[in-house]
Amino acid sequence: MKVAVMGYGTVGSGVVEVIETHEKSIKNRTAGEMLEVSHILDLRDFPDDPHADLFTKDFNDILNDPETKVVAETMGGVNPAFDFTMKLLEAGKSVVTSNKELVAQKGLELLKAAEKHGVNYLFEASVGGGIPIIRPMAQCLAANNIEGVAGILNGTTNFILTKMIEDGMTFEDALKLAQDNGYAEKDPTADIEGFDACRKVCILASLAFGKHVYPNQVRAEGITKITLEDVEYISSAHGVIKLLGQIKKIDDDKITAFVSPAVVFHGSQLASVNGVFNAILVRGDAVGDVCFYGAGAGKLPTASAVVADMVDCAVHVNRRKNFGWGPGSEDYVVDEKSALEMPFYVRAKATESEAVALFHNVKFLTRTGQPSDEVAFITDSMTENALDKKLAGVNVINKIKVTNY
Amino acid sequence: MKVAVMGYGTVGSGVVEVIETHEKSIKNRTAGEMLEVSHILDLRDFPDDPHADLFTKDFNDILNDPETKVVAETMGGVNPAFDFTMKLLEAGKSVVTSNKELVAQKGLELLKAAEKHGVNYLFEASVGGGIPIIRPMAQCLAANNIEGVAGILNGTTNFILTKMIEDGMTFEDALKLAQDNGYAEKDPTADIEGFDACRKVCILASLAFGKHVYPNQVRAEGITKITLEDVEYISSAHGVIKLLGQIKKIDDDKITAFVSPAVVFHGSQLASVNGVFNAILVRGDAVGDVCFYGAGAGKLPTASAVVADMVDCAVHVNRRKNFGWGPGSEDYVVDEKSALEMPFYVRAKATESEAVALFHNVKFLTRTGQPSDEVAFITDSMTENALDKKLAGVNVINKIKVTNY
Repeated sequence: MKVAVMGYGTVGSGVVEVIETHEKSIKNRTAGEMLEVSHILDLRDFPDDPHADLFTKDFNDILNDPETKVVAETMGGVNPAFDFTMKLLEAGKSVVTSNKELVAQKGLELLKAAEKHGVNYLFEASVGGGIPIIRPMAQCLAANNIEGVAGILNGTTNFILTKMIEDGMTFEDALKLAQDNGYAEKDPTADIEGFDACRKVCILASLAFGKHVYPNQVRAEGITKITLEDVEYISSAHGVIKLLGQIKKIDDDKITAFVSPAVVFHGSQLASVNGVFNAILVRGDAVGDVCFYGAGAGKLPTASAVVADMVDCAVHVNRRKNFGWGPGSEDYVVDEKSALEMPFYVRAKATESEAVALFHNVKFLTRTGQPSDEVAFITDSMTENALDKKLAGVNVINKIKVTNY
Repeated sequence: MKVAVMGYGTVGSGVVEVIETHEKSIKNRTAGEMLEVSHILDLRDFPDDPHADLFTKDFNDILNDPETKVVAETMGGVNPAFDFTMKLLEAGKSVVTSNKELVAQKGLELLKAAEKHGVNYLFEASVGGGIPIIRPMAQCLAANNIEGVAGILNGTTNFILTKMIEDGMTFEDALKLAQDNGYAEKDPTADIEGFDACRKVCILASLAFGKHVYPNQVRAEGITKITLEDVEYISSAHGVIKLLGQIKKIDDDKITAFVSPAVVFHGSQLASVNGVFNAILVRGDAVGDVCFYGAGAGKLPTASAVVADMVDCAVHVNRRKNFGWGPGSEDYVVDEKSALEMPFYVRAKATESEAVALFHNVKFLTRTGQPSDEVAFITDSMTENALDKKLAGVNVINKIKVTNY
């Protein structure tokens, strides 16, 4: 079967490589049919690439090729990826993607178009890189009411936090190291401010609870305010700080979904996820907690998920996979600050007796070189709004959510 | 769609419960069709059960009901489950199962029969309870050459080892506690001797590498020889002892597959899997390591996997899922003792200088109250046969494989 690849960057070139190097495993899944790359769309020139004869700068070459039935979109960004994908689906071609931004912003419209035209729009690679999560979650969904999802969804920030926790590096030094290693972009904003994780939360939330959640409905707080002092305090309580995307069902018509640093205690499967790895924990009423771990990014891991989706499309030509969701609404995602109760880590310029006076029951934390006018503690469970009210007159240095995953 | 359940034990009764309590999530996956239990086959009487009118002791009631298209086999054991399953497949009904013994012993014949009759034989619940592993692995396979698989596949032994490691309980006390908690049978042999894990290794190996592996081809060593002294020595090297099923590709025509205690170092995703939980790590050439974690047994987790398979059959009536494998052969699984090199933990009545004389480069371990004539160490990588040759004249107390997962 002829397939095309749009976008020959890290993931796209990996897709071509995986297709070429995994003929046997692909044929095992397709009952003998090979995927054959007919076109590679990219505006750049790759004069030394062995696939020179496959390159095109004209999208219509793919759109108008009746033999090309499956297309991998690995361009990233909403435009022109949305326009291209829509035209391909309308032309009766299946599309698979690693483009989390597009799925988070436009997934609903693209899934509806795929349904209307009897083709598939698959996006396993858009969350967790090579980790199988979209299908397993859809599978869990068949016999579970999902109660919540929590994930370490961004490898760059997890690498930085791991270096801070394990090697005592400052945030700035760890970010520099991530950039030197190619784990972080020159402009790291999307990673360190939590925007990348936010898009993945949207996709997981949409899938888990059946209604589209958009990035502007999900508060994203990054890791730039985390200091080594916070790391050390939390370590004294046998915990680590992770950037978590969390989704929780409130009732049949409401969820919360947010990205923030969170205290995870040792014993949680999420606490031992280190370096650039990702993990997604799904909590179902029948199955309990299941957790999926692996490389959340990278050329070949992500490409292998894209190619697995292409194989699935090849096997399911003229048959629909039943993944998707319906429309969301503005008031569907409620503010976790009022809807959720949880403990909080608080670090402040204050005394222990002031902390006790405000919160009654707290667990104090310690660090080396702790100034006499600084206090750090973990509160009982409460809403963040209630916490903020109590802290109104206090000189707070940092506060971090404590997760129950 | 009408479905039947054969075997109303823990899992079977859980299947009926999950079907009844998850109408909405099931309908979401089946485009609105409900699963309706038509028959429950069990030789026992359940006079107080609310499903009294559904019980039958006659298998033919299910076989001859043209409306019942999908059957869950949760009886366990090879007979009569094999005979019943074969007859159902031949009659054009899909069968799903949690019966690892049957899949490990007779999976090939049943998969072939399903293929021949255009129906499905699915077995997600046979490995890892509620953890989605069979489909995700099949999915990874599409774009990866699997290099190896390692899993904590038995919750009972993992519970016992966790109690030994974390609470310093003896093996005997921990086994007793497992029995008191209902995690271990009165006759715990199948768990503690590794036979249960062995069957799951057979299923995973058959799926990962495409040829049926039978239980008699997989060496199973249990945990009965593990002592608190071993636990403490290995703890001093930042490791834990886990009962692992391991499968490794040797070349295109050979694998190794075995169950044994293994030293897992902290930092591995398998090291933090505690209590009755299971985890399966799959190593692919493109995706790297992916790991799946969750409840490996229990009524509702396992039942949720069975029901998810039933839903999949209901969605795929008259369509085949492409899971399966071909025939194996006697010499396909080779002895890991000669085929694999790895480090070993050795504990012996000997001196450090004797250990160095035999192995040159070793890492010595320590424990409190270590007798002066006892030594424990970790060797360099070598085959177990080479190790045993070196240890021929030594008074060995215990030796344990060290895993590279």
